[in-house]
Amino acid sequence: MKLLPYSFRWLSVVVVFVALPAQAQHTQTYTYPSSEVVTIHSKLLKEERKIYVHCPKVDSADVNKRFPVVYVMDGDNHFALLAQYVDYLSRPDVSAMPKTIVIGIPNTKRTRDLTPTNSLLNYEGKPDSSSYQGSGGNENFLQFMATELIPMIDKNYKTRPYKIFAGHSFGGLSSLNCLLTHPDLFDAYIAISPSLWWDKEYLLKMTDETLKTGSALNKAFFFSDGNEGRANSFFHKDLVTLEATLAKKKLKGLDYRYKHYPTETHMTEPVVAYFDALRFIFKDWEKHR
Amino acid sequence: MKLLPYSFRWLSVVVVFVALPAQAQHTQTYTYPSSEVVTIHSKLLKEERKIYVHCPKVDSADVNKRFPVVYVMDGDNHFALLAQYVDYLSRPDVSAMPKTIVIGIPNTKRTRDLTPTNSLLNYEGKPDSSSYQGSGGNENFLQFMATELIPMIDKNYKTRPYKIFAGHSFGGLSSLNCLLTHPDLFDAYIAISPSLWWDKEYLLKMTDETLKTGSALNKAFFFSDGNEGRANSFFHKDLVTLEATLAKKKLKGLDYRYKHYPTETHMTEPVVAYFDALRFIFKDWEKHR
Repeated sequence: MKLLPYSFRWLSVVVVFVALPAQAQHTQTYTYPSSEVVTIHSKLLKEERKIYVHCPKVDSADVNKRFPVVYVMDGDNHFALLAQYVDYLSRPDVSAMPKTIVIGIPNTKRTRDLTPTNSLLNYEGKPDSSSYQGSGGNENFLQFMATELIPMIDKNYKTRPYKIFAGHSFGGLSSLNCLLTHPDLFDAYIAISPSLWWDKEYLLKMTDETLKTGSALNKAFFFSDGNEGRANSFFHKDLVTLEATLAKKKLKGLDYRYKHYPTETHMTEPVVAYFDALRFIFKDWEKHR
Repeated sequence: MKLLPYSFRWLSVVVVFVALPAQAQHTQTYTYPSSEVVTIHSKLLKEERKIYVHCPKVDSADVNKRFPVVYVMDGDNHFALLAQYVDYLSRPDVSAMPKTIVIGIPNTKRTRDLTPTNSLLNYEGKPDSSSYQGSGGNENFLQFMATELIPMIDKNYKTRPYKIFAGHSFGGLSSLNCLLTHPDLFDAYIAISPSLWWDKEYLLKMTDETLKTGSALNKAFFFSDGNEGRANSFFHKDLVTLEATLAKKKLKGLDYRYKHYPTETHMTEPVVAYFDALRFIFKDWEKHR
């Protein structure tokens, strides 16, 4: 391969040098706050699961402190975002929430783990056996969290008994399912654009049937949607119905907020909604501490 | 030191084991997207400056692509946040903005670099020589950016000629100062809670004097404030005045948005405002690409 006459070959050397980052400067790696990946074997899910763990940086004054925990679904999408939010918002000069541990759960079989019923119906109510085969394992997944994951985290990290369930889309569906079926597992629930359309609005009906008017449910609950299907879509109507159902039930102690983001898409919305959710859950933190 | 009888000493060994993260699991380090720290010597600032650089992850299809650049002030506060936002918002399944390089500039002498005039007056208009000694070096700092930093970045990284100036507080003041005095240096300007109170509203007056009614200024400009000093404070009034001044000037091509966040503090606001600023600047990106 004689593409260049010999006398011009020095040119390629020069080009390589120019393309290297930093000329005559000293370059180091930028250090992000450290997080780790723990692999555990789940007997219930019959598989190895990777779990992302981010602990607050502790100084000598914090050595004996224990921290609340946020468990976030779709770990590969939103774990690093939440880790960044809690680190920043808990800085002494920001002081909007306590230092918090973040646990991210990346998916293996997302539809299996994050849907409450076995259904093959898609967003439009039509059968889609290729996408939704094997759906309906959320109860088993919540049992995995309750009996395997949370005990492991509580045993190995400096947790205190305040836990938040954070989920988006099917993860938001799981958050509401957990609030309805195992409310005592967590103290606060975040459901960002929950897929309430799932299985002919199964969870929306269950919300109405499960929650008894005037009963006690001492939890914080943030839920939201973006512009999915635009303003008059059934996606948005389902969220409006969820809010109306909660209002109608007059539950004792349920501190909830519904926020609609008409300019955000299904995928951009979590960035702002997770921030607003943390601000909502910890709105009274500064005055109480 | 004989605190425990010998037969109980095994206890302390057990405690140490239990406190270690992860029992019978495999633990690895979580990998954040890589960023680097470049140290350059500035002749203008007469000092070594650390610069944080975050480049998009490129796959084989992107190998020859070049990227816009966001320059963010107060690098230790907001570089990692912006790096996270651009990585997430430019993912193929989110697709809200192009892949973008983020440059973070941590401070050495913040007041010197980020204030436009030499003034000792504090927020309340009273002299504070201890805090503001040496203020007024922003013009020299902008020259450092124009003649030393930006050329170095353009030489060493795959930039394309679209640049964003992102600043908060004194950094927001610098952003507006740059827009008024060197508008062609950047294509878009973000001023989150700019300290317009600086030196008896120096920049607010300069905005009115510098911008000629009906003149052309083809830039994007996002500015915002939180609840600084509450609703009727002069901090908020200064922002309202800035918006009124821009409206009055009827500038050709200036695409600006002012957003007020009454529930956010001076330090929580940047988290949501930087997100909104990127969404504003790239609002037409999806349809144009």
